Amino acid sequence: MEIRDLIRKKRDGEALSAEELAFFADAAAKHTAEEYQLSALLMAMYLRGLNARETVDLTLAMARSGDMADLSGIEGVTADKHSTGGVGDKTSLVVAPIAAACGVKMAKMSGRGLGHTGGTVDKLESIPGFRTALSAEEFRSVVNETGICVVGQSGDLCPADKALYALRDVTETVSSLPLIASSIMSKKLAGGAQCIVLDVKCGSGAFMKTLPEATALAEAMVDIGLRAGRRTAALITNMDVPLGNAVGNSVEVVEAIETLSGGGPEDLNAVCFALAKQILLLAGVGDAAACEARVREAVRSGAAKEKLCAMVRAQGGDESYIRHPEQFERAPYRETFFAPADGCITAMDTAAVGGVCVALGAGRRVKSDSIDHTAGIRFFKKTGDRVKKGEPVAELFCADGARLPAACGLLGAAMTFGETPPERRNMILKVISGKEETNGA
Amino acid sequence: MEIRDLIRKKRDGEALSAEELAFFADAAAKHTAEEYQLSALLMAMYLRGLNARETVDLTLAMARSGDMADLSGIEGVTADKHSTGGVGDKTSLVVAPIAAACGVKMAKMSGRGLGHTGGTVDKLESIPGFRTALSAEEFRSVVNETGICVVGQSGDLCPADKALYALRDVTETVSSLPLIASSIMSKKLAGGAQCIVLDVKCGSGAFMKTLPEATALAEAMVDIGLRAGRRTAALITNMDVPLGNAVGNSVEVVEAIETLSGGGPEDLNAVCFALAKQILLLAGVGDAAACEARVREAVRSGAAKEKLCAMVRAQGGDESYIRHPEQFERAPYRETFFAPADGCITAMDTAAVGGVCVALGAGRRVKSDSIDHTAGIRFFKKTGDRVKKGEPVAELFCADGARLPAACGLLGAAMTFGETPPERRNMILKVISGKEETNGA
Repeated sequence: MEIRDLIRKKRDGEALSAEELAFFADAAAKHTAEEYQLSALLMAMYLRGLNARETVDLTLAMARSGDMADLSGIEGVTADKHSTGGVGDKTSLVVAPIAAACGVKMAKMSGRGLGHTGGTVDKLESIPGFRTALSAEEFRSVVNETGICVVGQSGDLCPADKALYALRDVTETVSSLPLIASSIMSKKLAGGAQCIVLDVKCGSGAFMKTLPEATALAEAMVDIGLRAGRRTAALITNMDVPLGNAVGNSVEVVEAIETLSGGGPEDLNAVCFALAKQILLLAGVGDAAACEARVREAVRSGAAKEKLCAMVRAQGGDESYIRHPEQFERAPYRETFFAPADGCITAMDTAAVGGVCVALGAGRRVKSDSIDHTAGIRFFKKTGDRVKKGEPVAELFCADGARLPAACGLLGAAMTFGETPPERRNMILKVISGKEETNGA
Repeated sequence: MEIRDLIRKKRDGEALSAEELAFFADAAAKHTAEEYQLSALLMAMYLRGLNARETVDLTLAMARSGDMADLSGIEGVTADKHSTGGVGDKTSLVVAPIAAACGVKMAKMSGRGLGHTGGTVDKLESIPGFRTALSAEEFRSVVNETGICVVGQSGDLCPADKALYALRDVTETVSSLPLIASSIMSKKLAGGAQCIVLDVKCGSGAFMKTLPEATALAEAMVDIGLRAGRRTAALITNMDVPLGNAVGNSVEVVEAIETLSGGGPEDLNAVCFALAKQILLLAGVGDAAACEARVREAVRSGAAKEKLCAMVRAQGGDESYIRHPEQFERAPYRETFFAPADGCITAMDTAAVGGVCVALGAGRRVKSDSIDHTAGIRFFKKTGDRVKKGEPVAELFCADGARLPAACGLLGAAMTFGETPPERRNMILKVISGKEETNGA
């Protein structure tokens, strides 16, 4: 087999076989094809598309290109959760402990933040001592004993995806639905969990700006998961506003702890509880009503928060930070952003809000950037809220005071004020579970 | 400007501006973009196409990426001629001397053979002493003084095309009409001649197998030439059979000399005289009847043959070989191919006949192959001719006797014998000159 044969077939609109897609993934992982040939094929895939069968075969081939986590020794049902990336998205820190408290074994692989979106690994690393780089054996053992473990993606997880993503990133072939779906799902399949719940963000702070786009991606990923033999479901959730009131790293961990303690903001509660309920449903814990009751009880009783403490302890972190979050280091430089006039907040450019966090030092422009874990934003008012002129809307904070003025300017540009409040939008826009679809509410 | 912006635009089906196409050509010539980005853009161009304006702009940008021949100091009208590549195609050796004898300054840039097609440079190099690598100054001076010069493409002619062609060759992006047309025409524009006559080959021995394909390519190239301010015309000529009876290097030079002496085979005469007439028409020598008469007179009088002698002399070759072609070295190994049965030759796979020549050592599989100038085939019978069982059809010859058996086998496979002679096809299938098109005949 030669890579040129694959390029020609896809160029001419033909479907590639499972063997051919495995050859392609292997060539990418082992660098046995030239990058200019891989990129020509990626562009042909971008423009000619991949059918559902090809998408699954490519995903499986990329998953098998490196280490596959073996969770077979773990008692009970294992589950993983993935978000397509948003702003203020600390749901993993809430959802995983809730599901674990309800008996599901949460084996979660997470990423770092890049661009306007944050990453769970960065947030967890604001807890002193917390380790996200565990060996496969440690991962399995923490999941088995504690019921929950969140790790970063190890070096040899999906090397084909790693190589192809790097190439797509510089050849304008990122925004292809089958390529996005296969990239995400290859890592989830390699992660080994039996149940996969996907949180597909939709709106101004997400990669998918519209509901039809988000639906297409969610359906493609659920289809891959089901065809690969995993119990899979997706929620499409609202990312037109930052999720919760905190955006940053340690400040998001603190808000997650508040939420696990029953004091979370309404929008964050809605998304976290819906995701946790979906995991319980897939894991076979009970019917919808029973799963919803279990979720609420896990928070009310404090069992979910105890699970977070247990995970932090098991992964080398200082659990006293979870019990007493006031211990998190406070950023030395702070600035308040005030409402410029009477009225209400009519819209927030949420990707731009993520950009403000990057400007503060809380995120990365490029992979090699280091991160200020204390930097971030806390909102007092969000889209739809009424404000009076001079009333505090948000507080910005960071370790480097020189960054504040530009960040404040960017935040001002990201917010729109006016007279008429916008229509309220549900947080859960759609649930895609196997063959049935339901509108959230 | 960034190459990524160009990739994205073309990926989404937008047209690129002249500035953007110049940036692309420059990046290819100077290696300032990554090859994986160039190949992604080439695939996007392949699948999304280039409109007529983009094709011209790309061609001009590639032409300007390196040296542009300056023929402004030459007295009279300059002309160049290009063939898209065929088998037995020695027309340049006939047409250029005829046109020069009629007063047109022939400034011709030629290539070497590759694959099943031969190259004029290789053929000329079978004349002892003949130099095809002249400096720009020598080229200009020979054209001016002798009225005719045929050189190889110099090192810095169209470096953008050179880089892009090499990349297209390994990424399955060769067979794109605008990319083929711009590749050919960029070299012709850089060659500097005012008049350009294109011989677009069509049939089993050509890259373009059908008349619609050949017409589309011819029209695209003529359009480029006209938009770039050159007088341009194209002939679509029959390449379903080898042109003339000789295929090889020195054997083709001998046939060209025979043709210039008035003794050429009918099909070769037809194509050569039509091409020469077209050059004279573009150069403004007279109307169609006058140009045709001038062409015939140049051959009849011996003036055209004298021009070939003058050119060989000016370029360091031994002109006695032109006056006494029996001096050309004879290949030591020879084999006759006989008709297998009574009947007629119903078809010849002409690309395969080119392949027989490569097998004999007369051509190249890859660019670095060396060439046997004595090797080749002389046909006694071609498509449409009646044969008797055991009658000689062709003679194969070369310097390496071990190559003969396989070559004979290949020739047998390339020829189809039967009862019913095929319909006779004109040699000139179409003439495309500016806005008017006429059927040849």
